[in-house]
This record gives sequence, C-alpha cells and structure tokens, in this order.
Amino acid sequence: MADVYEQSLQLHKENRGKMEIRSKVPVTNKDELSLAYTPGVAQPCREIAKDKSQSFVYTNRGNTVAVITDGSAVLGLGNIGPEAALPVMEGKSILFKEFAGVDAFPICLNTQDPKEIINICKMLEPSLGGINLEDISFPRCIEIERTLKQEMNIPVFHDDQHGTAIVVLAGVMNAIKLTGKKKEEMKAVISGAGAAGSSIIRILHAYGIGEIYAFDINGCVKPQDRDKYDPFKAELLEFVNTKGIEYKNMAEAMVGADLFVGVSAPNLVTEEMVRSMNKDAILFAMANPSPEIMPDIAKKAGARIVGTGRSDFPNQINNVLVFPGIFRGALDAGAKGITEEMKMAASAAIASLVTDEELNDDYIIPPVFDKRVSAVVAEAVKKCAYEQGITR
Amino acid sequence: MADVYEQSLQLHKENRGKMEIRSKVPVTNKDELSLAYTPGVAQPCREIAKDKSQSFVYTNRGNTVAVITDGSAVLGLGNIGPEAALPVMEGKSILFKEFAGVDAFPICLNTQDPKEIINICKMLEPSLGGINLEDISFPRCIEIERTLKQEMNIPVFHDDQHGTAIVVLAGVMNAIKLTGKKKEEMKAVISGAGAAGSSIIRILHAYGIGEIYAFDINGCVKPQDRDKYDPFKAELLEFVNTKGIEYKNMAEAMVGADLFVGVSAPNLVTEEMVRSMNKDAILFAMANPSPEIMPDIAKKAGARIVGTGRSDFPNQINNVLVFPGIFRGALDAGAKGITEEMKMAASAAIASLVTDEELNDDYIIPPVFDKRVSAVVAEAVKKCAYEQGITR
Repeated sequence: MADVYEQSLQLHKENRGKMEIRSKVPVTNKDELSLAYTPGVAQPCREIAKDKSQSFVYTNRGNTVAVITDGSAVLGLGNIGPEAALPVMEGKSILFKEFAGVDAFPICLNTQDPKEIINICKMLEPSLGGINLEDISFPRCIEIERTLKQEMNIPVFHDDQHGTAIVVLAGVMNAIKLTGKKKEEMKAVISGAGAAGSSIIRILHAYGIGEIYAFDINGCVKPQDRDKYDPFKAELLEFVNTKGIEYKNMAEAMVGADLFVGVSAPNLVTEEMVRSMNKDAILFAMANPSPEIMPDIAKKAGARIVGTGRSDFPNQINNVLVFPGIFRGALDAGAKGITEEMKMAASAAIASLVTDEELNDDYIIPPVFDKRVSAVVAEAVKKCAYEQGITR
Repeated sequence: MADVYEQSLQLHKENRGKMEIRSKVPVTNKDELSLAYTPGVAQPCREIAKDKSQSFVYTNRGNTVAVITDGSAVLGLGNIGPEAALPVMEGKSILFKEFAGVDAFPICLNTQDPKEIINICKMLEPSLGGINLEDISFPRCIEIERTLKQEMNIPVFHDDQHGTAIVVLAGVMNAIKLTGKKKEEMKAVISGAGAAGSSIIRILHAYGIGEIYAFDINGCVKPQDRDKYDPFKAELLEFVNTKGIEYKNMAEAMVGADLFVGVSAPNLVTEEMVRSMNKDAILFAMANPSPEIMPDIAKKAGARIVGTGRSDFPNQINNVLVFPGIFRGALDAGAKGITEEMKMAASAAIASLVTDEELNDDYIIPPVFDKRVSAVVAEAVKKCAYEQGITR
C-alpha cells in the first residue's frame, strides 16, 4: 500500500493534478475567433435569451456535471476539508469523462452549512447539466440532496449514498439468480446506516427484500428508539425492523439471515456469525480498505457468495460501475432528476452484463473496465426517464 | 454580419458548445485507477489536509480559473441572464486555454444580488486558482470585485473593467512615443464612465495623464454633482475634472484634447469635434460594433492615431491581449491578487512588442494572434507580483 501512496503522490505532483480544459473548436485566426467569440457568439446568446432551454443546444451545458463537496466525509479520511478533498473530486471528474464522456469539474465549497450548500448549488444551475454531490457527511447529505432534488430542474445525485447501493442491488439480483432465493422471503442485515447504508436499505426494500435489519454504532435500529433518532434515521423505520425485534447485537440478527451488506468497519463479522446465516449466504463486506470479514474466512465459514469493495477479490462493488452511466443516461434523456426507478434500472442493467453461462459465485458483477457497463446503464436510465416522463 | 451570426450558431450547435474536460493521466486499468483514484488518491488528500497550500502542488487548482457572471451586462446585449451568457463564458474559457494554457470554466449564477455573488465566489475559493469576473453590470461589478479582492486570497479580476483599460494604456504608451506628447500635459476625454470607463480613468491617471474629463449619459462628470452620484461614480472625482469645469457637452471638452477614449455608443464623436482637438490627436473609439467615430472620418478630420475594438481596422483594442497573460502571470507567481502596478506592467509589456522600427500610426498595438503577447504579459505580471511581495 505504501508504494501505491508514494506513486500516487508522484503522479499528482508531476502532472499538477489530473484534469484540464480543452477547446472543441479552433480559435487560431480572426475568422475562427469571430465565430467562437465576438461578434458571432452574440447569436447563440440571443437564441438562449429567447428560450433558456436552448442553452442545452448551443453550449456544453447538457454534458456538464459539477462534482460538489464540502470535504466533510472524504474517502475513509473523514472531515479533511474542501482543499484536501480536491484530489478525489478531480479523480471523479476524469472518471466521468473516461467512462462516459461526461465533462465534470470539481467544486469544493468553503462551507459545511447545509443551507448555504443548498443555496450555492441552486445558484450554479444555469451553467450545469447535473450535480454529483460527493463525500458529504451523513445526515447532512440527505437534507442537501433531498432539497436540491425538489428545488432544481437538473439531476442531483449523491454518489456516496446511491452509487454503492445500485451496485449492491445488481449483485443481489445475480446472487438471487444463482441461489434461487425468493426475495420476499429473504432476511437482510445491513451494517452501517449512514449515507450508503440508508440508500442500500431503501433500494433493497424497493426491490422487495422481505425483512431488513440495520445496525449502526448504537446497535440495532428499531422503532422503540424512534424518539432518539434524527429525522433522517427515523425515516428508515419504514423499511427496517418493522416487527420491532430487540436484537441485542448484530450476531443475533445474523441468525438465519440470507444477505449481509456491510458499509461500516473492518472485522465486525465473525466466522460464527456467517455460520449462523441461512444456506447459500450472500455477503457484501465493503468496509475499506479492510472488509467486515475477509472473503476467504467468510467462504470457509460457509458463505456462498462474497463481494467486497476491493479489486483484489472477486465480485468488486465499485461505484465507478454506476455514476458515469447514470449521468450519461440522465443527461442524454434531458432528465430533470434521478428517480428510485432509474436507479433500479441501472442495477438491472449492470446485472444483465453477466450472462447465464458466465454467472458463478465468483462472478456476479461485471468488472470495472468492462467497456459495456456505462453504455447499458445509460441506455436503461434514459429509457426509464422517458417512461416516467420526467424529461425536459 | 448576418453570415457570421448564422455560422456561429451552426458552430455552437454542431459542437454542442465549445469546451470539454480532459484527463491528464491515464485511467485505463486497475493499476492506473489505483493511483489516480482510490486507494492512492488518499495520499495527496492527506498531504493537503496537513497543509492547504499543497493543493496548488497536487491538483490542477493553481492552473484553474472560474469565469463567473450573473449575465447582467453581456456583450452589448445587456441583462440577458445567466443561461444566455454561457456561450460568451465558454468562449472566454477556451481563449484562456488557447492563449495562455489556463484551464478556465464558466459559472453562470442564478442571482444578481451582489451580496450573494460575493458570498458564492468566496465559497468557491478552495478549488480555484483565480476568478475572472465577466459581464457584470456597473456599478455592482465594482462593489463585487472590490470586496472579493479584499476578502479572497486568489486573484480576482473583472475583465470588462480592466482588460480594455490595460490595452488602451498600451496604445497610449506607444502613441505618446510616436507623437512626442508629454503625458503630464495631455488632456484626455473619456466617453463612458461605467465598468470599462472607470478603469480606463484610473489607469490613465495612475500613468500620469495630466487632465482627464469623463462623460456619461448625464453629461460631464464634475465635482459640483457629487451628491447626485453613487459612491463608485463619486470616487472618480478624485481623478477627473479636478478643476470643476462645467462643460455643457462633450464637444466643449474635446477642444484642445490630446486623447479621446470611447467606451460608449456609436457616432457620438463628430468631424468637428476631432478638428477641435490638439495636434496629433489620438482616438480610441471602442463602441461595438459601430465606434464613436469611424476611423476614416476621424483621420480625414485630422486625427493622427485611431484605434477601435474591431479587427477590420488598424490598432484593434482587444482584451484577448490581456486576460490570458495576466492570469498566466498571476497564477505562475502564486499571486494573491492583481494590483494596479501589475496591470500597468501588462500594458507596458503589450506596448513593448511593437518595435521602434515597426511603430507607426496604424500599428501601435500588436495583433491579437501575436503568439508572444500572453508570454510577455505573463512574465511582466509575474515579475511585478514578486517585486510587490504579494505572492503566496
């Protein structure tokens, strides 16, 4: 790991970051200048002044996404601030371009006040096609994303929440295919009820998983504790532990579970816990860099399908599979937002890239560099947006 | 002109705007991804978290300029709003890149409240190397730029104010060389006392022009009317009409003038007015697209040197000569701001590119596509920033 860090530092320093702006039109002589700039440029300006929607025709707006953060929850590093978040946002921006041709640029805000972040995002709308919120801490991220979705007319998507959730659901879809489990009868345990966890809970519920239990630092999320929760956590009670079971710890909940999803901390899951799970147990242990349980240990304890966030194990859950394609599709459709249905369509599209012949316990998710991924995700998301009638 | 407009519309539509984002590093396989993104990217993040100034080392921040507008004074089109301003901002952005290698991107704000614009700009600082304010109406632009200069630690520059002023001063420097006029004895008349006019007044005064008179829609700017002026216009009384002359109109002021600078409206200057000027009269008539007086008419009436904003006449005053180089220099120096001295250094650098052998009445300003311009401007600005000790 030390090596990767040292090499990365070198790469960033030598290249002075990772991204640049390029012109798509020539401006090398007077004639070209008079078309790209004054006086010719006045004409597209006039057309847009007459009809704002023409900004998607005459400018790059419809292909432009701002990657916006306040630096409050960066990778596993925590609240390191907006300047220190910039390398991640630049990374995200170039992945947008490389994987889906989307032009993204970082905006690292010098405020962590949700109201102010919301206001700034709204003020930025006229030159943007979409907003990818990134690395904003929970539960502030929920308030910010939700308000922006209501008040803006372009897609807003907090990748930390939904990116992982969408890939997890893709994995669950294929794991169900392999194991023959019935989703309505499945019991799922989610470790972590923050940004990613809450979105995973919602999407699994929307997909139709029978019972869902969630754990966070304070233990089992249960209706008995409703009054202790912030409003965003309290909302989860609609989807988890609807029976109000008083599990003393995660080990108790894991008994008879079909699915474990971890977005929490290393080594929270033991061999015994896996052994207590239902037959053909499915685990997505995505704590970074060390998962909730190492895949070989989980397998030895009887798990059938194990995925992690890491590229050095099978079944990598990586949101690079999602965000480029989901924005590509939303932008191409002229979608005003990204709905739960569009997210589930993205999951199904990802899952569909593993054929019945290829599908096996160690191959339920296509690899990150499968060039087809962003295209099929985009297509599915676009189709769904049209069907829902939420396009401009 | 119709042709240019039609062609420009076509160009913008076919290319879907004019700019794109590109990656400077490869992300085509797992190893490359692990350096540009997770897990490697955590290392530059950690370094910047320890010392924010390292964001200029490990990211593209130090080469990044936001072109920010509220769409309140776009070209000669007026208050057409932020969406309609976007083609101009994209144009500006690509010129930054093509002329000086600066990575600029447009931010068109959905507010015209100066307080809000100021706040947003400040919040954007962590991912920016500089801010180019653009097409913001007078006098709001003065309040916004001035506040940001005081409260931000990166260069902020409203091109509409200073870009033209810097090129005009370059022209004046070379015109003085040609005509042998003494700057302290020169009388100047400025038509237009808004964004560009007020900056022209300031820079000519700082350079040492003897007497300056300004006219706007209400006539001669004079100390007698101080109480009627907004604070920004009142400030100009420090530099113009210090004797308190009650010129009834511009024609009266032009008598005996050495220099006329117009940033106002077509056809405000007559042959008679030019004839009443001092010997070797110098005129910069920059109203767009039709100047205050056409060059041939001014020449026939006895003017010696005439410049306009147009590329189809000699001595084109075009701020493309300024903004790319001035930001290149400021960014390279790590300057925290752009001072009056840096602006005057830019003027001198532009003027210096016309050699004594080349210098003549129809060639006092280097052409826009003289590749040397941005480099010499950058060098001069950088040197000045170091001398003034305003670098990071």
